[in-house]
Amino acid sequence: MCVLDENSPLALYYQLKRILEDKIVSGTWHVGEQIPTENELCELYGVSRITVREALSELEREGYITRKRGRGTFVSIPRIEQNLMGIYSFTEEFRKRGLTPRSEVLEFVRLLPERSVQEVLGIGEGEAVYYLKRLRFADDTLMAIESTYLPCSLFPELSQERLMEAPLYDVLRRDYDLVLTSAQETFGAVLIQPPDSSMFGVKPGAPGLELERYSYRGSACVEYTIGMIRGDKFRFTVKLQ
Amino acid sequence: MCVLDENSPLALYYQLKRILEDKIVSGTWHVGEQIPTENELCELYGVSRITVREALSELEREGYITRKRGRGTFVSIPRIEQNLMGIYSFTEEFRKRGLTPRSEVLEFVRLLPERSVQEVLGIGEGEAVYYLKRLRFADDTLMAIESTYLPCSLFPELSQERLMEAPLYDVLRRDYDLVLTSAQETFGAVLIQPPDSSMFGVKPGAPGLELERYSYRGSACVEYTIGMIRGDKFRFTVKLQ
Repeated sequence: MCVLDENSPLALYYQLKRILEDKIVSGTWHVGEQIPTENELCELYGVSRITVREALSELEREGYITRKRGRGTFVSIPRIEQNLMGIYSFTEEFRKRGLTPRSEVLEFVRLLPERSVQEVLGIGEGEAVYYLKRLRFADDTLMAIESTYLPCSLFPELSQERLMEAPLYDVLRRDYDLVLTSAQETFGAVLIQPPDSSMFGVKPGAPGLELERYSYRGSACVEYTIGMIRGDKFRFTVKLQ
Repeated sequence: MCVLDENSPLALYYQLKRILEDKIVSGTWHVGEQIPTENELCELYGVSRITVREALSELEREGYITRKRGRGTFVSIPRIEQNLMGIYSFTEEFRKRGLTPRSEVLEFVRLLPERSVQEVLGIGEGEAVYYLKRLRFADDTLMAIESTYLPCSLFPELSQERLMEAPLYDVLRRDYDLVLTSAQETFGAVLIQPPDSSMFGVKPGAPGLELERYSYRGSACVEYTIGMIRGDKFRFTVKLQ
């Protein structure tokens, strides 16, 4: 079967790349599934090995596939384009994309925060906050590490057990009637360093997005989060008027 | 003069860092200005050299200062927090922050674009576009490299000379009555590689923000830009409702 057009102005590798990309985006090939070998692709599409390699390299660079030495090439979780049109939750966004979201609460403590956190949350000296560090997975791939501060006074008796049962925002809504009215997020590009890099399973110095989020109910800041997001798996999109 | 509080719960280096940061943010110390030496800071604030070094390291890490070997420490352009609340222009944003904006047109050609650009701009095969590559400076620091595609049919007789006289958006507004009604921007974290890294004067592998922008008049896309922005100088902020 050869569906590539030799007479097209588009390079063959690019035509092939688009065809394979379609198979991934459309779900014909699922996340985690092994795709045909280079030899098989050569035969299937009647192209040279160089053409196949170029197409695969571009798909790998764009995060669609992962090549595992000696094991083959697998569909990886594609880059998520998170739309910044409203307050969003990773849990829901992953789910919308057919990925299984999972959060792991790595740390949950009550503490007296440093001055800068007091100021952000508008709480007095001596007022305690919950500090929670969470790992956010999509289909077992670690996508983000988030450190969140919540004023204890607003969420009495919040516990690690409760946070393990349901996503944070669900718990806050269900148990504390919290409805967020706005949020402010700031993004910057950074390099992922240890220990984060080993948690993500990327090399130290891999690209990351550093996120800061302030969530509000009315004019009160009720959540302050600092996060690190895998740069190879995420892009943010915003519509400007 | 010692204004640090030994009894504060805040570490001395952190107190000092906040004081120096204030001087930069408030403009007491200007961009490009040399700040006191480590010895002078030790004396001024009655602290040890270790404390001064820690404060300076943090200021350097956050992009407030640059240490030049054998020459001293200078106030650098602080990170710009670009608010994504509406269509913005780097030219105006730099100016608002007291920085002198400058654009250099590195390339300006008419060409027949590849299929993906045709699709974005909604133009037919065989229709030409202007391709321009611009370097965007703030106070002589290269902040962004942008490659822009504009349909020739919309902007007859646009020339490099005109783009050297005035900022792109000013030219499009003045000479072609162009008013943008919306834009979509996408950001991702990447590593800056050669040749971009040498243009920016950063090491290969430094953090960068990759930007894609589609600008619209009504439903027609009239500008498509791909940009690379220095990660150490820029953060983007968005308000979510």
